Amino acid sequence: VAGFLSATASSKQKETGADDLALIYSPGGAKVAALFTRNKVKAAPVILSAKRAAGGSAGAIIVNSGNANACNGEEGYRDALKTTEMAARALGISAEEVLVASTGVIGKRLNLEGIEEAVPSLAAGLEEGNLPRVARAIMTTDTMPKLSRCEGVVAGRTFVVCGMGKGAGMMRPDMATMLVFIMTDLNIESAALQTVLANTVDRSFHRINIDGDTSTNDTVIALANGKAGNEVVGNDGPGLDEVQRAFDHVGNALARMLVFDGEGATKFVEIVIKGARNDEQARLAAHIVAESKLVKTAFFGQDANWGRIMAALGRSGAEMEPEKVDIFIDDIVLVKNGLWAGKQAEENATARLKNREFRVTADLNLGSGQATVYTSDLSLDYVRINADYRS
Amino acid sequence: VAGFLSATASSKQKETGADDLALIYSPGGAKVAALFTRNKVKAAPVILSAKRAAGGSAGAIIVNSGNANACNGEEGYRDALKTTEMAARALGISAEEVLVASTGVIGKRLNLEGIEEAVPSLAAGLEEGNLPRVARAIMTTDTMPKLSRCEGVVAGRTFVVCGMGKGAGMMRPDMATMLVFIMTDLNIESAALQTVLANTVDRSFHRINIDGDTSTNDTVIALANGKAGNEVVGNDGPGLDEVQRAFDHVGNALARMLVFDGEGATKFVEIVIKGARNDEQARLAAHIVAESKLVKTAFFGQDANWGRIMAALGRSGAEMEPEKVDIFIDDIVLVKNGLWAGKQAEENATARLKNREFRVTADLNLGSGQATVYTSDLSLDYVRINADYRS
Repeated sequence: VAGFLSATASSKQKETGADDLALIYSPGGAKVAALFTRNKVKAAPVILSAKRAAGGSAGAIIVNSGNANACNGEEGYRDALKTTEMAARALGISAEEVLVASTGVIGKRLNLEGIEEAVPSLAAGLEEGNLPRVARAIMTTDTMPKLSRCEGVVAGRTFVVCGMGKGAGMMRPDMATMLVFIMTDLNIESAALQTVLANTVDRSFHRINIDGDTSTNDTVIALANGKAGNEVVGNDGPGLDEVQRAFDHVGNALARMLVFDGEGATKFVEIVIKGARNDEQARLAAHIVAESKLVKTAFFGQDANWGRIMAALGRSGAEMEPEKVDIFIDDIVLVKNGLWAGKQAEENATARLKNREFRVTADLNLGSGQATVYTSDLSLDYVRINADYRS
Repeated sequence: VAGFLSATASSKQKETGADDLALIYSPGGAKVAALFTRNKVKAAPVILSAKRAAGGSAGAIIVNSGNANACNGEEGYRDALKTTEMAARALGISAEEVLVASTGVIGKRLNLEGIEEAVPSLAAGLEEGNLPRVARAIMTTDTMPKLSRCEGVVAGRTFVVCGMGKGAGMMRPDMATMLVFIMTDLNIESAALQTVLANTVDRSFHRINIDGDTSTNDTVIALANGKAGNEVVGNDGPGLDEVQRAFDHVGNALARMLVFDGEGATKFVEIVIKGARNDEQARLAAHIVAESKLVKTAFFGQDANWGRIMAALGRSGAEMEPEKVDIFIDDIVLVKNGLWAGKQAEENATARLKNREFRVTADLNLGSGQATVYTSDLSLDYVRINADYRS
C-alpha cells in the first residue's frame, strides 16, 4: 500500500531470538479507526491505544509479540507509554501519534531494554515492501503469516486495502480476539473509517470462535493515509459501499485464515444456524455449538456425531423444538425432524468430515434468524500446544 | 440398604458384552423424588420417568448403559415404555411403578430384544448385596464404579442412605449431568424427599463441571422405602436436618468421584470464587473459569498460568476490577491486587499444581458473593476418548 513503511527486528521478548517487534509508519499521518477487546481485563497497550485512537488520527503503530503486557498494573502501563516514546523519538513525531499493540504471555514485564536497542534499527529499516515480514513478526503460536489485499475504485480512483492478522488461541469474539492491522491509501473521514471497520468486524472477526476464550489484547486498527487521492469518503457520501466491500473482503479472508491456523486445528468448520426465532438466538446457538468440547472432538475424530450437536443446541438457551431440527453436513441431510436420516446419509456425511473444510448447518425451523460462525476442531495438538506454552 | 434388591445383566447394548442393564427393585414400593436434565433435548427415558416420578412413588428402576435412547423420536419413547413394561411383567407390578434411565450414545435405537432376553435373568438374580454391580453396569467411559453410603439417626432410629453415580463426560450442571440413584430406608414424605434431594443436588451435582456440555439424559432419582421404621419425616418436622446431612454427604462424595473420574482427568480442581458482588455472579465466574479450555490445558500442563485465569474472569460477565483480584493456589498467593506475586510464589504454586488435587481461589474483593465448582483438567486423553468414542 502506497505510503506505509514498515520494518521488523528482534527485541528479545521471544526466547528464540526471532523478530518480535514491528513498526508501521505512515509519514504525514493517517486517519485511524480501532476496536478493542471487551474483556474486563485489558492489557496496557489496549488501554493506551484506545485513548490515542479516539482522536481519529495516528502516524505509527509499534507492535511486539512474545509478551502481552497484560496484568502488569501501572508499571505495565508505563512500559507501554515508554515503548511509544521510543518509537516517536526515532521517527521524529509526537508519542501521541503512536499506537502500540502487544501479544503473547500475560503477566510478564516487557523487555524494555530489548525494545530500546531494537528501535533505531527498526527506524533505519523502514521500507514499503516489508508488510509480509511484519505479519510474520507478530506471530505467536501461529504457524503462518496472514495477509490479505483487495483493490477498489472510488470515483475513478483505485485504492488498496491491505490487512494482516495473528490469532491462533484465546479466540472468541467479544471482540475480535487477535491483532489485526489494516492499511489503506484511501482518503476517508475518521468517522466513516470507524463505521466501515465496525461493520467488517461484525461480519468477520466476530464470527470466529476457536476456543471460547477472549483475549485481553484484542486489537483491530485501520489506518488510512489518503495517498489514493480520491475525493474524501464520508459517512453518507458515495463510495462508502465500495469501501465496505473491500474491507469486508480483507476481513473475511483474514478471519478464515485465523481459523484455518487455529491452535492445533485440523478442520475448518462453518457452523450455520438457520430458522432460529431471531438472529440473536441463532448467534447464541452457533457459538455454543462451536465451543462445545464434545462437538469439536467429534470433528477431530471425523465422527458424524449429530447427537452431540443436538445436545449443544438443546443447552444453548436458544428456543428449539428437537422434533423440528434438521442438520446438514455440507448439503447432506444427517438429521431430519430431529431424527437420524439413516446409514447411507451418515456414510455420506462422514466422507465429508474427512475433508479439511466442511459446513455444518442446523435448521431450527422456527423462524428466520440466521448466523454463521467459523470454528476449528479440538485436537490433540491443541492440548499439547496449550499445556506446553509458556513452560 | 435394607429392602432394595438389584441385579445386572448384559442386554447387548455394549459391543463388549459387559453387563449394561440393571434393575433396582423395592418390594412394596417406595417414595420417589427426582430431578432431570434442563437440556431442551431430553432423552425418551427422561420424559417418561419425569411423568411417572411426579406421582411421588415408584417400585423399580430399570437402567441401561451403552445407549442413551435420545433423539429417537416417538419410536424411542415407545422403546422406553416397552422396557418398563418388560420389567413390570417380570416383577409382577404395574408399569406405572417402573422408572427407566439410559446413558450412552445418542441417536441409536435401543436393542430391545437384548433387553427382553435379559429381563428374566435380571428378575431371577435380584439380591440385596448387588448395588456395587449395578454401579459398574451403568458405567460408560467411567473407569470405576462410584458408590457412597452414609448413616444417620432420626428419633432414635438408624437409617442408611446409599447412592451411586456415573458420569465421565458431557457434564455440566443445568442439571446434574449424569445418572445418580440414591436409595434410603427412611420413612419420609415424597415432598420432603424432593426438598432434600433438590438441596443436595444444588450443593453437589450442580457444582461440577467437566466440559461444559449438558447431557440429554441427566437423571437423579431417590427412592425411600420406609424400612428403617422411623416416624415419618415431613417437610417441617424434626429430623429433616439430619436427613439433609446424610444426603449431602452422599451427594458431595459422588460429585467429587464424578470429577475425579472425569474423562481423561489427571487433576481434581476446586474452583472457589470469593468476594463477588453476589452469589450468582460468583457462580457465573466459577463456571467460566472451570470451562475455559486454556485454563484447563494449563492445569494439565501443571503451569501456574494465572493470566489465563484473569482473562477468564474478565470475560465471565461477573463484575470485576482487575487491580482488586487476588488468586491463590491452595493457600499460596499467586496474584495480589491483580499483579504477579513473584517468582517464589509461582514456584510454590507450581509445586501444588503437581498434586492430583488442588484448590484455585479467586477473590474479587468486591462483595460477599461466593461459589465453588469442582472441575478437572483438559488432557490429551480427554480428546482421545471423545474423538474415538462411538467409532
